[in-house]
Amino acid sequence: MPDSTHNLYTEYVTLMQKAADISNAAAVLEWDQETYMPAKGAEHRARQLATLAAQAHDILTSARLETILKELSHRKDLSNTEHANVRLSLHDFEKNKKLPSSFVESLSKQSSECFNAWIEARHKKDYSIFAPSLAKMIALKQEQARLYGYIDHPYDALLDDYEPGATVAMLEPVFAMIREQLPPVLAKIKAAKQVSNDCFHKDFPKQQQWDFSENVLRKMGYDFEAGRQDYAEHPFTTSFSSKDVRITTRVDEHNYASLLWSTIHEGGHALYEQGLPFEQYGLPLGAAASLGIHESQSRLWENCVGRGIASWQYFYPLLQSYFPEQLANVTVDTFFKAMNRVEPSLIRTEADEVTYHFHVMIRYEIEKGLLENKIDAKDLPQVWNSMYEKYLGITPPDDVKGILQDVHWSHGSFGYFPTYSLGSFYAAQFFAQAHKEITDLDLKFARGEFEPLLLWLRDKIHQYGRRYTSEELCEKVTGEQLNTAYFMTYINDKYAAVYS
Amino acid sequence: MPDSTHNLYTEYVTLMQKAADISNAAAVLEWDQETYMPAKGAEHRARQLATLAAQAHDILTSARLETILKELSHRKDLSNTEHANVRLSLHDFEKNKKLPSSFVESLSKQSSECFNAWIEARHKKDYSIFAPSLAKMIALKQEQARLYGYIDHPYDALLDDYEPGATVAMLEPVFAMIREQLPPVLAKIKAAKQVSNDCFHKDFPKQQQWDFSENVLRKMGYDFEAGRQDYAEHPFTTSFSSKDVRITTRVDEHNYASLLWSTIHEGGHALYEQGLPFEQYGLPLGAAASLGIHESQSRLWENCVGRGIASWQYFYPLLQSYFPEQLANVTVDTFFKAMNRVEPSLIRTEADEVTYHFHVMIRYEIEKGLLENKIDAKDLPQVWNSMYEKYLGITPPDDVKGILQDVHWSHGSFGYFPTYSLGSFYAAQFFAQAHKEITDLDLKFARGEFEPLLLWLRDKIHQYGRRYTSEELCEKVTGEQLNTAYFMTYINDKYAAVYS
Repeated sequence: MPDSTHNLYTEYVTLMQKAADISNAAAVLEWDQETYMPAKGAEHRARQLATLAAQAHDILTSARLETILKELSHRKDLSNTEHANVRLSLHDFEKNKKLPSSFVESLSKQSSECFNAWIEARHKKDYSIFAPSLAKMIALKQEQARLYGYIDHPYDALLDDYEPGATVAMLEPVFAMIREQLPPVLAKIKAAKQVSNDCFHKDFPKQQQWDFSENVLRKMGYDFEAGRQDYAEHPFTTSFSSKDVRITTRVDEHNYASLLWSTIHEGGHALYEQGLPFEQYGLPLGAAASLGIHESQSRLWENCVGRGIASWQYFYPLLQSYFPEQLANVTVDTFFKAMNRVEPSLIRTEADEVTYHFHVMIRYEIEKGLLENKIDAKDLPQVWNSMYEKYLGITPPDDVKGILQDVHWSHGSFGYFPTYSLGSFYAAQFFAQAHKEITDLDLKFARGEFEPLLLWLRDKIHQYGRRYTSEELCEKVTGEQLNTAYFMTYINDKYAAVYS
Repeated sequence: MPDSTHNLYTEYVTLMQKAADISNAAAVLEWDQETYMPAKGAEHRARQLATLAAQAHDILTSARLETILKELSHRKDLSNTEHANVRLSLHDFEKNKKLPSSFVESLSKQSSECFNAWIEARHKKDYSIFAPSLAKMIALKQEQARLYGYIDHPYDALLDDYEPGATVAMLEPVFAMIREQLPPVLAKIKAAKQVSNDCFHKDFPKQQQWDFSENVLRKMGYDFEAGRQDYAEHPFTTSFSSKDVRITTRVDEHNYASLLWSTIHEGGHALYEQGLPFEQYGLPLGAAASLGIHESQSRLWENCVGRGIASWQYFYPLLQSYFPEQLANVTVDTFFKAMNRVEPSLIRTEADEVTYHFHVMIRYEIEKGLLENKIDAKDLPQVWNSMYEKYLGITPPDDVKGILQDVHWSHGSFGYFPTYSLGSFYAAQFFAQAHKEITDLDLKFARGEFEPLLLWLRDKIHQYGRRYTSEELCEKVTGEQLNTAYFMTYINDKYAAVYS
């Protein structure tokens, strides 16, 4: 007698949740590494993480899991939810299987070597130290694309790791929009009178900054009983279950903007993680849809809500009560303009909402060129600098502020960058839809009511986990596919207000 | 051709270190649970810990490990160190094998049930809620002793889990000493004029307490690059490798003693862990000899050093600089007497150096009686209270302050308590030896020089890990077996000074 569907599904869940337990334990160790671990702990932390990764990998590539998934995929008596989990897990399993373990090992070794070379190159401000390692990494990523298989473009195979279903064919019009429609916006802004952001650059004591940022998180609906915020050198969000989702951030006592919007950004990521269905722990439906959708949540809160005048009609008097002297003569309008100041700059992570997408587009073009062998790794500084000159009108003084600024390529993350722009564009489209469906959303923000928006996001997006691809979800939520016109409208409206 | 000894030993080390990676990851999760984890994180943290425990257990009970250990135990070409590791690992393996997995599962389930019953009984101040669960636990521990096997007494089998080599035959004279020689000491102290400890009970701001305690830890030689101190409800020490050894403690703003000596106590444990050989990570020689030896390190620092007048000749002026107002009119002599005040009390963890051992002896007698079926679980409150009346002259007002005060039995930890007294007695003996071997030890303390003592402990004790049993180590360090006369001399000398 064959195993009952119920028993097989239960075994599938048990295996997946065991792997999740181990991966989440690793996430705790990584969080600790970035927040509290003493320096000398690093040496054995690395091996502890490697062991946990191997243990989780063993489960997720086990013959037993394959047998169960294949058997379950033929069963007709699964619920829709169960069927979706099995379908996605089988997809993941078969994708993983395409990479021989010797290849995975090479990739992992090259990733360590390449990361170390990147660190050294930054330290010595010498790109040539990084170039040969990066060239090897690119060859491996080309091999990975071949192993995964693709129809139109090798980049499609790599994109799938971060944004399932995304392809070059889908991205081309998105980046064409950036290339064609954003330069005129930037030109208009440059022609207008620049707004000042002096109001950020005063002395803002750490503790008050921290307290206010936690106040904002609370208002956004972040559950501090299911998470916490800590200091770390790099802001990030991590999750050990949807009931333990943590944020880190950093504080600059001379620039309040640094903490505040990175807290709101990470808060957006965290609200998504806290909203994923707890009962789907360890299963695809308990995980985020894609990096693009994840980023849509952080950008929606950071930019659409967090840099909107409506929210600050509520928050600004509160902020002033934390910093009565520093903000005594600063009106909410001045503050609003300061937070939306546009200015071409060298560092992606510090860029404004307009110029940010040039940074991403440049990386996307370079990644494609590298995979197609149209660009050679050793020429990257020149390629980079000429594109920065062309789109942003500035040239990095050195490679640390140029081609060496991002860690992604050293880790082998090719295909990750596009999700940053996709996130902003999905965010604008979702936000426009929320405005249509929630009455007086701006008025609500001005009264400090953010729950209606959060509940809408929970209902429309968070609850589904990976059930839909980004594109399917976008269509389900907004009735149409990704449409960058929403972003352009959002940008035009905002900067009309900021730059008159 | 048989595998080379080198290859087999390498495989043994790989398996052991994998298991250690997983157990240490679990220790990070437990540390996080006690320090930073948000409340709702508890639900899935429990399952993550259970999964890690099962993964480590699978490795440590694997057929492959058994094969390797048995093969290696016959090889003649192992170094002394390698041979010791193999011998101890084989001992552990064979001991574990005596417990069928069904028994281990029952024990683990009963431990959860019994712990929950203990919590509820404490909450409702009703011992009868705990009694039936405890009775089941005792039956399981009797079964465990039978499964392990023993020659003289079932308690011997259980002791071995905490204090390898310890037996009732060895403990009887130790506890006889407590029963016979400590009551006259206590009587003499009671007859003398009580010393005041008012100087602890003032307002001591948290941050200054914390800063001073870290100052003391640094002076003791605790390496803050290989550890850290955090707040937690219960003070403890935990280790993820000898280069990441962490302490927790709690702060009472109205009782400085609470933080200070618990920090020094945990600091003693931590110095031992930091002193274990890093290159023996995951192997028996990289682990502590026993709980008794562990406790000897914490007690030596807490009591022999930390409650000695010599150390305070150095530390007291520093402490006064942290609390100039609170300690303005308190002399170092008053302070020394306060920290050594003896007074029978109900709670073991708050007891002084004399009465502490009555608490331990009472638990030891009860554990033996339970295992021998001479005491029935349901009668424990009466047994407990009458022994407290007899030895300490006080009776608990309720069972929370009596029979329900310790968590140990609910976890099934029978045989653990004696290690607390053994620790103090080993500490006194080691400390006397250190005085013989290090010139002017007290003068050094008075000058703030604690490194000679730490280096002596590193050399005599820490570096060996589990190479020797407690008894072997004691003989190696002091030239004789455990001799409680050292403790009695230490006690008589100290209290002659305190109570004149």
